[in-house]
Amino acid sequence: MNQQQNEELTRTGPGTLMGDLFRRYWLPVMLTRDLPAPGGVPVRVKVLSERLLAVRDTDGKVGLIGEFCAHRGVSLWFGRNEPGGIRCPYHGWKYDVKGQCTEIPSEPEGSTHCQRIKLAAYPLLEINGVAWTYMGPPEHQPPHPQFEFARVPAEQTYMSLAHQECNYLQALDGGIDSSHVSFLHGDAINSDPLFKGSKGNEYNLKDLRPQFDVGPTEGGINIAVRRNAEAGSYYWRITPVVLPTFIVVPPRGTHPIHGHVWVPIDDENCMTWSFSYHPTRALTPQERAALEEGAAIHVKLVPGTYRPAANRDNDYLIDRAAQLAGTKFSGIDGIGVQDIAVQESMGAIQDRTKEHLVSTDRGLVMARRTLLQAAKDLRERGTTPPGVDPEHHKVRGAALVLPHEVPFAEGAREALRALPGVPPASV
Amino acid sequence: MNQQQNEELTRTGPGTLMGDLFRRYWLPVMLTRDLPAPGGVPVRVKVLSERLLAVRDTDGKVGLIGEFCAHRGVSLWFGRNEPGGIRCPYHGWKYDVKGQCTEIPSEPEGSTHCQRIKLAAYPLLEINGVAWTYMGPPEHQPPHPQFEFARVPAEQTYMSLAHQECNYLQALDGGIDSSHVSFLHGDAINSDPLFKGSKGNEYNLKDLRPQFDVGPTEGGINIAVRRNAEAGSYYWRITPVVLPTFIVVPPRGTHPIHGHVWVPIDDENCMTWSFSYHPTRALTPQERAALEEGAAIHVKLVPGTYRPAANRDNDYLIDRAAQLAGTKFSGIDGIGVQDIAVQESMGAIQDRTKEHLVSTDRGLVMARRTLLQAAKDLRERGTTPPGVDPEHHKVRGAALVLPHEVPFAEGAREALRALPGVPPASV
Amino acid sequence: MNQQQNEELTRTGPGTLMGDLFRRYWLPVMLTRDLPAPGGVPVRVKVLSERLLAVRDTDGKVGLIGEFCAHRGVSLWFGRNEPGGIRCPYHGWKYDVKGQCTEIPSEPEGSTHCQRIKLAAYPLLEINGVAWTYMGPPEHQPPHPQFEFARVPAEQTYMSLAHQECNYLQALDGGIDSSHVSFLHGDAINSDPLFKGSKGNEYNLKDLRPQFDVGPTEGGINIAVRRNAEAGSYYWRITPVVLPTFIVVPPRGTHPIHGHVWVPIDDENCMTWSFSYHPTRALTPQERAALEEGAAIHVKLVPGTYRPAANRDNDYLIDRAAQLAGTKFSGIDGIGVQDIAVQESMGAIQDRTKEHLVSTDRGLVMARRTLLQAAKDLRERGTTPPGVDPEHHKVRGAALVLPHEVPFAEGAREALRALPGVPPASV
Repeated sequence: MNQQQNEELTRTGPGTLMGDLFRRYWLPVMLTRDLPAPGGVPVRVKVLSERLLAVRDTDGKVGLIGEFCAHRGVSLWFGRNEPGGIRCPYHGWKYDVKGQCTEIPSEPEGSTHCQRIKLAAYPLLEINGVAWTYMGPPEHQPPHPQFEFARVPAEQTYMSLAHQECNYLQALDGGIDSSHVSFLHGDAINSDPLFKGSKGNEYNLKDLRPQFDVGPTEGGINIAVRRNAEAGSYYWRITPVVLPTFIVVPPRGTHPIHGHVWVPIDDENCMTWSFSYHPTRALTPQERAALEEGAAIHVKLVPGTYRPAANRDNDYLIDRAAQLAGTKFSGIDGIGVQDIAVQESMGAIQDRTKEHLVSTDRGLVMARRTLLQAAKDLRERGTTPPGVDPEHHKVRGAALVLPHEVPFAEGAREALRALPGVPPASV
Repeated sequence: MNQQQNEELTRTGPGTLMGDLFRRYWLPVMLTRDLPAPGGVPVRVKVLSERLLAVRDTDGKVGLIGEFCAHRGVSLWFGRNEPGGIRCPYHGWKYDVKGQCTEIPSEPEGSTHCQRIKLAAYPLLEINGVAWTYMGPPEHQPPHPQFEFARVPAEQTYMSLAHQECNYLQALDGGIDSSHVSFLHGDAINSDPLFKGSKGNEYNLKDLRPQFDVGPTEGGINIAVRRNAEAGSYYWRITPVVLPTFIVVPPRGTHPIHGHVWVPIDDENCMTWSFSYHPTRALTPQERAALEEGAAIHVKLVPGTYRPAANRDNDYLIDRAAQLAGTKFSGIDGIGVQDIAVQESMGAIQDRTKEHLVSTDRGLVMARRTLLQAAKDLRERGTTPPGVDPEHHKVRGAALVLPHEVPFAEGAREALRALPGVPPASV
Repeated sequence: MNQQQNEELTRTGPGTLMGDLFRRYWLPVMLTRDLPAPGGVPVRVKVLSERLLAVRDTDGKVGLIGEFCAHRGVSLWFGRNEPGGIRCPYHGWKYDVKGQCTEIPSEPEGSTHCQRIKLAAYPLLEINGVAWTYMGPPEHQPPHPQFEFARVPAEQTYMSLAHQECNYLQALDGGIDSSHVSFLHGDAINSDPLFKGSKGNEYNLKDLRPQFDVGPTEGGINIAVRRNAEAGSYYWRITPVVLPTFIVVPPRGTHPIHGHVWVPIDDENCMTWSFSYHPTRALTPQERAALEEGAAIHVKLVPGTYRPAANRDNDYLIDRAAQLAGTKFSGIDGIGVQDIAVQESMGAIQDRTKEHLVSTDRGLVMARRTLLQAAKDLRERGTTPPGVDPEHHKVRGAALVLPHEVPFAEGAREALRALPGVPPASV
C-alpha cells in the first residue's frame, strides 16, 4: 500500500472518499440508555469527524443535529430544551429535533426567514438498546438495518461500546484477520466463559497454519479459514464482512455468536461496538453478567466513561510475570482488550507503507480493496455500495467440520444465512 | 465572510494586517498591582502573540521588553534584576527597562558594541491601576488614552481582567451585539446588583425585536438600538465602539457605566478587560464589593490566576436544573461568564464562513468592515486609524427614551459625549 | 544563520543531513543497569527520532531493534521474550536480538520467508556501565569508542543521564561556550564539592573578557580560552570537541575531569550524558556520593525517571530571594541544572536567525560550521567525518598557566592527549 491509499482508506471526515462511503450506511452511534430524557440535556457525540448533539424534545422525539447554532456558531449543548425544541442561549434561535430552525425571536412577526435555516440533522433509529443514524443524502437513506443481532428479541442479544484510540481500519483489519486468535487470544479462548470448552478451540490451537479462502459476497466478503480437523476433514471458520465495518465471529460450541461494528469518531479514534447474541435462545443470566464484566470480546470500562479500564496509559495492565511464565501469552487480560492493545500500539493511524503482508492477510487485503473500490464506484458512478441493502445484513458467521472434498461454499451455504429460528452452525 | 477575511480579521501577530492595526493604539496589558516591585522579579506577559516581560528596575522605572536575550535567546525571566537593569543569567548581558543593552561583560573595555543591541521594548503607562502599552512604531505613538473610565478619579472607577480562551473578535462581536441581552442575560439584568431595578430592563425584556441603526463615528461606530417604550416613544440604547476593541455598555438607572476592552494574547486567547465607573460619583463600598465578586460584567476568578472560576473545563458550572426549570435561561451564573461561555463555545477561532447573520447583526458587520478597512487604509496609504486620536475616546454609552419623531443622533448627541462632571444619560 | 541552516543543523531524523552524520558514530543510549535482564521485558528507547527497543534474550545477548513488528506494525514492547527472541503478541512472529525474523508461525513448514524479514537493528556495546549503539550503515561501523572516560577502570569514572527538553544543539552550543561559566556558574564553581578551591576558579572569575582561540583538530575542534593570570602569564582552558557532540571540560585543581555527550532523542529533546573521571586515581566515596546527588555537571532526577527534579514545570526551583540578595547569581542550584535551564528557556529549537553573536561565541560558530561541513562532505563525497576514528577520541581538556610568549598549541600539546597513567593538566 502506498501512502495515498492509506490516506484514502483511513480518512472519513465530510467530503473524503471513504467519508462519503460511510455516509451511505446506517451506523450505530449511541446506546439508547445514553440518549437524553424527554426535554433533557443534549448529549455530545462525534461521528465521522462531525460534532453532533443527540437531542430529545419534550414530546420524546429524538434527533441527531449539528452542535453549533447556524447564526453565530454557539454550541447548542448549552441551549435550553423547551417544548418544541432547543433554544440557543445566545439569541434564542430555536431548533427542532430535525435541525430545522423554528424561531428567530429578533425577526419581525410573520417573518419566514427561520424556515431557510437548517442544521445538519440525522435520524436516530432505536433498535434493541442501540441508536443508529444515517448521515448521508436523505434521498439515498436505506431501509432499516436487518443485522440479526439487532433483530432478535432483546433477551437474546447484548451490545456494548468502547472508545478505541486509533483509526477504525486497524480495528477492522484485526476483526477480519482471525489468524491471530491462536496467538493473541490463545489462552483466553480456553478460559473465557463465553468461548471455552468447544471442540473448535482445539482445532484452532492445534493448526497454526490456517488456509484462507476469501471471496466476494453481495454485501462485502466472506473470509473462510480452514484448519485441519480429524483425518479427512477440515475445521472451517467463516467470517462474513458486510461493508463498511460489520463482522461476525464464527461461534463456538453452544456459546452465543459475537461480532463487531466499528464507527469512526474521527480519523484517530473509533467506537468499537461489540455484540453477542444467540439466534434461538435468550442469553442466560450468567452470560449476561459475564458480558457486562467484559467477557468474550467486550471490555470493562472506566466507570462513567467508554474508555477501557485497561488502556494505553496503563499499558493495558499487562502482567509481565504471567507473560514470562507462559500462563498468559500476551500478559493482557480479555479478548477485547487484547485486540485494542495491539491495534492501538500501531499508532493513531498505522503506517501501512511499512507492512509485510502474508498469506493469512488475504482477508484484510481483500476487505481494503473492496472498501476502496466501493468508495470509488460510488463517487465516480454513483453505484450503491455493497452492504447498503438490508438483505445483505442477513448473514451469520459459521464454524463447521466438513469432509475434505466438500467446498465450504457448498457445505456452509445455509449456515451463512441468518434464518430466524434456525440455530447457528457452531463447533 | 470568506475564509481569507476571517483570517485577516483574527490574526494579530507581528506583521499581520490586523496586528499592524492593533499596534497603533495604547492597549491595557496588566493591572499595575501585578507589576514587579522595584528591583523585583519580571512578569511574563503575552500580547499580540509577542512574549514580553514587564520589568521594573531598582529605581522604580518600568518597561515592557522582549522576553529573550538578543545574544543566544535565553529567557530574561531568569535574569537578575540589578541596579540599572536586568542581567541575563547566561553571559551577563544587561538591559535597561527600555530594552537597551547596556553591558556585554565579555567585550573589551570601552567597546560600544552593546549600544547596537536593543530588545523590542514598549512603554508602560500607569493610569488608575492599569498599565497600558503601545507596541507600534515610536514615531506614531499617540498621546495618552482619554477614555473616561481611565480618567475619572480612582474612587469612581473599577477595572478587572480575565483570560478568555478564544480569539478577541468573538468577544468584540459579542460586546457589539446587544440583542443577546434579552436572552443570554435576561435573568441576570434583573438580579445583578449593578443592573437590576431599572426601567430600561423592562423595555429590554419586553421588546425582543430591536431595530439597529448603525453609523460611523470619528473613532469607530455607534450602534443605536431602538425598542418600543411607552406609546409614541422609543427606548434607545446606544453603544459606542472605539477602534480597535473599546465598547461602552449603555447604563441602567442609577448604576455605573460598564464596558470592555479586549486585547489579543495570541490568536486563540484574549484578555477581557472590564470596567465599571460612574462619571460623577464614587462607587459605593457595596458596589465595589460586588464587582470584586464578579458582579455586572466582571468575572470571579480562580484565586491567584486570571482564569474564570467557571470555565470550559467545568462547563461554566452550568446549572441544568435551573435552566430546565426556567429560573435561569442559560443555566450559567453571571453576565461576564455567560458571555465568555457562549463565545468560547464557538471554538478557538469561530468559523465565520458558516454564519447566518440577521438584521440585529448589523453592528458587528459594520464593526468588522470598519476594522478591516482601517487596517487596509493603514497598510496601503498610511492612514491614521479611527480611535488613535484620544479625542475619539471621549464617548459614553447612553440609554434614553425619545419621542418617535426625534432621531437618536439628535436626541442623544450630548449624551454620547464624555463630559466631565455631567451625569450619564441612563434609564 | 538563516532558517535553512538552523533546520539543517537541528534535524536528526532518518534521512536528514545531520541525521546521516550522527549515524556514523557510536552513541551512548542507555545505562547498562537499565538494560533488560536475560529474557526480560524490553525497554523503549527513542534515539535520533527512531523508536527502538532494547532487548535481551534468554541467553543474555542484547540488541537494539525497531519497536514495531514488520508484519502489521504492532509494538513488540508487548511481545513475549522467549528462548531465541521476542515474539509479537499479535500473530507470533519472532525476532532475535539482531532484528532478524526467525519464525512466522502461519507460514508452511520449511518456508524461508522469514529470512527476508528484518527489523532495523543496531548493536549494543557495553562499556563501564554505559550501552552504546551505532545506527549507521553496517559496512561503515567504526571500531569501538576510545574516549578516556569510557576506558579507565570502572572505579575511576562515573556517568549519568538526564532527559533535556530541547534540541541537542542548544546543549552543545552551551558546552562549547565556556565564557558563561563566570556568570551562570560563578557561585557554583566555588561551592560545588567537585569544582571548589582551585586556583583556576580565581582566574576564571577575575577576568570576564576571555580571549578565544579556536582551531580544527583531527576529530573536531579545540577551543582554547585565555584569561589573565599572574603578570606575564595566561590562564588557559582548552576544551576539545570531538564530533558530533563530545566535549571535555578542562579540570580544576585535583578534581576529576568532567564532560558531556549529547544524543538527540528527537528534534525537541536530547539525552544529556555527563561524565566525571580521573585518569590516574579512583573517585573517592565522597566524590561518588556527591556525583550521585547531582554535584558537578550532573543533575538530581525525579526518582524512577531521567527527568531533572528541577525542571521547566517548576521554573527549575529558582530561588529568587537568593538571586536578588546576590548570594546565587542565577537563583538556580547546580551547574547541570543551570545549563539545562537556560538552554531550555530558548524554546524547543532556538531561533538562531535572531542571535547576536560576539567574539566569545567563536567556538560555537566554528563547531556549527564544522558539523555542517562534515555532514555535507559525507553526503556529497562520502568523506568519513572527523571523530569517527577512535584515535580522535583520545583527547583531554586541559587547564594550565603559560607564559605570555608560549602559544597554547605548543605549551598544551601533551596535555591535550589522553595518555594512560599520565595525570591531567589541571590548575
